[in-house]
Amino acid sequence: MKKQPIGFMDSGVGGLTLVKEARKRLPNEDMVFIGDQARLPYGEKPAATVREFAWQMANFLRHQEIKALVIACNTATAAALPDLQAQLAIPVIGVIKPGSIAALQTTHNQRVGVIATTGTIQSAAYSQQMAALNPDVQVTGLAAPQFVTMIEANQRHGQAVQTIVNQILQPLQKSEIDTLVLGCTHFPLLTTAIQTAVGPDVTLVNPAVQAITMLEEVLTQQQLATTTPGTLRMYTTGSVAAFEEIAQQWLAQPDLTAQQVDIQKEKNDGPDR
Amino acid sequence: MKKQPIGFMDSGVGGLTLVKEARKRLPNEDMVFIGDQARLPYGEKPAATVREFAWQMANFLRHQEIKALVIACNTATAAALPDLQAQLAIPVIGVIKPGSIAALQTTHNQRVGVIATTGTIQSAAYSQQMAALNPDVQVTGLAAPQFVTMIEANQRHGQAVQTIVNQILQPLQKSEIDTLVLGCTHFPLLTTAIQTAVGPDVTLVNPAVQAITMLEEVLTQQQLATTTPGTLRMYTTGSVAAFEEIAQQWLAQPDLTAQQVDIQKEKNDGPDR
Repeated sequence: MKKQPIGFMDSGVGGLTLVKEARKRLPNEDMVFIGDQARLPYGEKPAATVREFAWQMANFLRHQEIKALVIACNTATAAALPDLQAQLAIPVIGVIKPGSIAALQTTHNQRVGVIATTGTIQSAAYSQQMAALNPDVQVTGLAAPQFVTMIEANQRHGQAVQTIVNQILQPLQKSEIDTLVLGCTHFPLLTTAIQTAVGPDVTLVNPAVQAITMLEEVLTQQQLATTTPGTLRMYTTGSVAAFEEIAQQWLAQPDLTAQQVDIQKEKNDGPDR
Repeated sequence: MKKQPIGFMDSGVGGLTLVKEARKRLPNEDMVFIGDQARLPYGEKPAATVREFAWQMANFLRHQEIKALVIACNTATAAALPDLQAQLAIPVIGVIKPGSIAALQTTHNQRVGVIATTGTIQSAAYSQQMAALNPDVQVTGLAAPQFVTMIEANQRHGQAVQTIVNQILQPLQKSEIDTLVLGCTHFPLLTTAIQTAVGPDVTLVNPAVQAITMLEEVLTQQQLATTTPGTLRMYTTGSVAAFEEIAQQWLAQPDLTAQQVDIQKEKNDGPDR
C-alpha cells in the first residue's frame, strides 16, 4: 500500500508547533505542511474568509493524497472544522477541543485564561468548549494578535519583545488564572517571553500535545499508522526565505527547505461525501 | 442504520467509572457493560489468564454487535489491548495510555505515582508508557490490590476504610509525587479516602476522563456518533444484587438493573482480521 502523508495547514509558521510535536511522537509518518503566509494574519479576517482560505489549503493537501488533516490553526479550526469534518472522508483534527481538554486537566482552581487571535476570541470557541466539558470553569479570554506578526518576523527573544509581551498580557494580572492556553498555534514560539510575563504560578498549555495524542489514537484505530521512517515536505504561499529561517530554528533542522505554491489556483474537488 | 452500542468490560464494578464518564459526555450512545465478578480479582492472576478472560468478555460483547470496545480495566488493558486491537475490526480503547497522558499533563515536578493491581504494576505498563511520552518523568508504582476487594464489597467510606487506605498508601509519603494515577478502574470509587490519605498537594488522575475523550474522538472521526438518547444494559457473571447496589449508588440510578450471564459458554468467533 502506498504511504500517504498527514497534512498540516496554518496561516503561517504557527502550525510548526504541531509539526514539531507530531515529528517527535510519530516519527514514521510522512507529513506535508502548508503555511498561507501570503495572506496572514487570519486572526483579524471575517470567519467566512478564513473558511474559504481553509478550503483552499485543504484542497491543496487533498491533491497530495493525505490520509488525515490537522488544522494547525485555532482561527481556522473555529471557522472551518465542522465543515471540513462533515465533508471530508479522512480524519480531520482541530486544536480547540484538544486545547480545552488539556486546560481542564491542568487547572486546579477552575480559572483558565486563553490568549488567541481576535477571530478565535470573538468566536468564543474555547469558552463554549470548556463550559460543555465542565460547567464550573471560568474562562478569561484575551486577544493578542500582535504576537502573530512578531513571531512571523522572528522577533521572539530579547528585552524589547519582553516589554511588549508584558504589556499585552497585563490584563491577565488580576484574573487569578492558574492555567493559560496558548490558543493560537503561533504562540508556543513565544513561550519563554509569555511564561516570564505571567510568572511561574501560571501553567502554559500548548494544545499541540493533546491534538497529536488525538491524531495518534485515530491513526491507530483506523490502522493508518506506518512503520518506516517518515519524511517532511514544506510549502508556503509567502516568502520561502522567511519561512525557512523560522522553521529551521524551531524544528532544529538547519537543512530544511520549503517551496512556494499558489493555492488559489488549486482545483476544488468538492466534498468527499 | 441500526444503532449499535459501545461495549465496556471489566473484572467488576471498576468499569463503571468509565461508564459514568461516558454517560455524561456521550448521552446519546447505547452502552453495554459486562463485569466478570464471578472471577475477580483479575489483578493477581497471570497475564495469560487475564487475556483469556478478556477475550471471553470481548466475545460476549461482540455478539451484542458493539461498534467500539472499551477495556475498562487496567489489568486487562496491560494483558490484552495489543491483541484485541490487532484482531478486532472495531476501535478498541484501553485505559493505560489515556491515564499516562493525563498524568503527564497534570504533573508539574515530573514525579508521578501510580496505584494499581499487582498485575498492572508488574507489567510496568504505566512507567513504560510515560517514559515513551516523556523521558524525564519519574514514576513510582505501588500495588494496592486490597482496594479492589474493599470496593467490590462496597466498603468505601468511614473511619475503618480510611485507616486501611492510609496504611496502604503510606509508602508514597516520601516520594515527592505531585500527581497520583488511579491505575485501576475500581479506585475512583474510593477517591475521597485516597485524597485524604495523600493530602491536598497531590492531584489524583482518573484515566476515565482521557479515555472517554479518545473514544469520543474516534467515534467522531469514524462517523459512528449518534444523535438519539442512549440506553444502558448491564451484565455480571457474579452476584446481581451486589453489582446492582454499587452501580445504583455510583451512577445515581436507583432503578438500574443488571442480568447475570455465563460468558464461558460464549462462542469464540475468532479474529475479525
